[in-house]
Amino acid sequence: MVSTIRAEILTIGDEILFGQITDTNTQWIGAQLTDIGIRPVRKTSVGDKRQDILDAFKEASQRVDVIIVTGGLGPTRDDITKHTFCEYFGTELQINEDALKLITEFFNKRGRAMTELNIQQAALPQNCTYIPNLWGTAPGMWFEKDNVIYVSLPGVPYEMKNLMEFEILPRLKSRFVTNIIQHKSVRTIGIGESFLAETIASWEDALPEHIKLAYLPHFGQVKLRLTATGTDQQLIDAQLQQQVDLLMPLIEEYVFGFDKDELETVIGSLLMNSNATLATSESCTGGYVASQITSVPGSSRYFEGSVVSYSNAIKINVLGVSAETLERYGAVSEQTAREMAEGARKVLNTTFAISTTGIAGPDGGTAEKPVGTVWIACATPDETFTQLLTLRNDRKINMELTNSYALNLLRKTILRYNPAVKS
Amino acid sequence: MVSTIRAEILTIGDEILFGQITDTNTQWIGAQLTDIGIRPVRKTSVGDKRQDILDAFKEASQRVDVIIVTGGLGPTRDDITKHTFCEYFGTELQINEDALKLITEFFNKRGRAMTELNIQQAALPQNCTYIPNLWGTAPGMWFEKDNVIYVSLPGVPYEMKNLMEFEILPRLKSRFVTNIIQHKSVRTIGIGESFLAETIASWEDALPEHIKLAYLPHFGQVKLRLTATGTDQQLIDAQLQQQVDLLMPLIEEYVFGFDKDELETVIGSLLMNSNATLATSESCTGGYVASQITSVPGSSRYFEGSVVSYSNAIKINVLGVSAETLERYGAVSEQTAREMAEGARKVLNTTFAISTTGIAGPDGGTAEKPVGTVWIACATPDETFTQLLTLRNDRKINMELTNSYALNLLRKTILRYNPAVKS
Repeated sequence: MVSTIRAEILTIGDEILFGQITDTNTQWIGAQLTDIGIRPVRKTSVGDKRQDILDAFKEASQRVDVIIVTGGLGPTRDDITKHTFCEYFGTELQINEDALKLITEFFNKRGRAMTELNIQQAALPQNCTYIPNLWGTAPGMWFEKDNVIYVSLPGVPYEMKNLMEFEILPRLKSRFVTNIIQHKSVRTIGIGESFLAETIASWEDALPEHIKLAYLPHFGQVKLRLTATGTDQQLIDAQLQQQVDLLMPLIEEYVFGFDKDELETVIGSLLMNSNATLATSESCTGGYVASQITSVPGSSRYFEGSVVSYSNAIKINVLGVSAETLERYGAVSEQTAREMAEGARKVLNTTFAISTTGIAGPDGGTAEKPVGTVWIACATPDETFTQLLTLRNDRKINMELTNSYALNLLRKTILRYNPAVKS
Repeated sequence: MVSTIRAEILTIGDEILFGQITDTNTQWIGAQLTDIGIRPVRKTSVGDKRQDILDAFKEASQRVDVIIVTGGLGPTRDDITKHTFCEYFGTELQINEDALKLITEFFNKRGRAMTELNIQQAALPQNCTYIPNLWGTAPGMWFEKDNVIYVSLPGVPYEMKNLMEFEILPRLKSRFVTNIIQHKSVRTIGIGESFLAETIASWEDALPEHIKLAYLPHFGQVKLRLTATGTDQQLIDAQLQQQVDLLMPLIEEYVFGFDKDELETVIGSLLMNSNATLATSESCTGGYVASQITSVPGSSRYFEGSVVSYSNAIKINVLGVSAETLERYGAVSEQTAREMAEGARKVLNTTFAISTTGIAGPDGGTAEKPVGTVWIACATPDETFTQLLTLRNDRKINMELTNSYALNLLRKTILRYNPAVKS
């Protein structure tokens, strides 16, 4: 078996240690490396401290073949990274003329003046390979020392991703003969992790040695991720599909998609393939469901719009919910959810409409309707389906869960309405 | 000077290395530790591998005084963490009766049956201190070995945060005499990082030795974070405030808030203190701006609702945008943005309304109106203000930037309308 190339992902920056910003870079890099068969075995974050950076480099060099370093680069004064690189690689900084030319063009194109700090961004350790950054001002750098590759990239996600995609991943791919690590995921909603595990236990026990299963729960969903390693892409793909085919009959009602499918992309496909349109009317989710639906490029083909009726006045005046219903049952009720969905269908003139009304928290709960009480509804040309959710007391989680369950209600409704449609 | 207590934050789990999920835990933990004067010096992520976990523990124990470990715990079969803990701490697993009682109650309260896997969650290394988890089923654990504290917590963010807040942070606080590490942040929008640095260069150079400055750019904003270390909380607070008072005259027009202020909380305070109400009408942001406004608890006091007019039909039929305007200038134009904002004000009957209309990407751009062309408007009882944004070509970034600039336009409009109001 071909030995797997191992990688470490390293970030430099106090702001990550102190929790001041969200690190999304290392997740993305980990996924990209995995996709090309390079196995991330460690992630490390250190502060803007010379000794910690040197220690991290030294330790990583004893563990892995490839080190991807992000952060510590930028035009302001808190960046000591390049000097530490020089110390580690035994060299000095020198202005790289190609880098300087690119940075100058970057500013000219935007009609902005360069500062001295920007000019210094073109100063690179002399023995690195310069990696041009067409998306920002901090150059990428590639070093090799004692059979270990070190790649330094800016921390700005947009720049890092483009540098990885267009410069770094191609070089890594052509450099290494790698094992294939292939994932296949089955996306479920509406069943808890433990029950899912018990339901599929015999199938899981029968998995071959080279195929592993992981349970990835997230906001009311559980992603089942199969991971197969091997050298023959076609064989691996076939083996994974075979396992999925064996699994499906056990859990079909809970499965909404595979791999990169999300509820919003799945309902998008179902709507397009049904020639149907959609609207939302939202109270407690405040536009979040609409924003998730419209996060899908091309959603304008099936999504007409939304009424966020945060106040009762808007429910009455814009959606046509009857004042009597609100008086009698309250804003958070099956009746109001139903009238909101039917009102949206009418006012926005769509095939389907989904509504949400509830108490997201942290305030607003009562004994009768505690925080986490949410009604959702899905209106069709013929009838309206409703569902009660009893969620926890974390506002953000409740928004995510309500969105997931509302989209899933829509998904099941479309399939009930049009059983032959594909997603 | 009292020596600072050093900490390492360690995650266990393949899914983090492979980039399958977003790690938000370590950011949160880093911020919490920093707030109580414990300095995070390293973050490490390893996979579900016995040797890697053992190596990470050993290395960390030589670096720090406190190790916070998350992940690797849960009811499914991919969790080997507890056995590795037993090996490292030289002990064996045993069912902890208190833990079993709590887990059983957890399931009874929810009317759900326990599985064998759930029962095994009560099996703990014998020499750990059991930390009860009232928010889930995986118990917390506290170990001490050779003067190093190891805390093991489940990876589910909601559970981890509650365990940290109610069990772990109090114990760490009472255990250590610590230096205070205090942050003070100034939140700016509308000025690039390099120009900001040049504008405040002389002030930054004059900062005392024990106060450091970091630039944290994020979605069109730059957060200036001052960090002071010392032992006298009152003195440090006064010194930080003094530096902020010196800074403000240099950059006042770009400052929208401090510390944990966000644009949506700032406009919320301004609206409440003005006794004013707000609506949004959104096209390209698809409800995102409304969802950000309503993410603030209590926003129902000033936010009436939103019309997401994703299609032109909705712009005309619900918001009252004139068909002629759409015909003549197009959906993405100053005129349409203006009519959308004024229409929302009327239909939703509010003091202010903000609108967004543009091309978020990746498709839909033309030579005349490329991807990233966005018009925003803010309508008041007297006049309507508009602004053209020329953004990049990343859809998600464009949504975030449009939201930030729209809320900032509203902020400046409210202040212009009511200069005396406080936020």
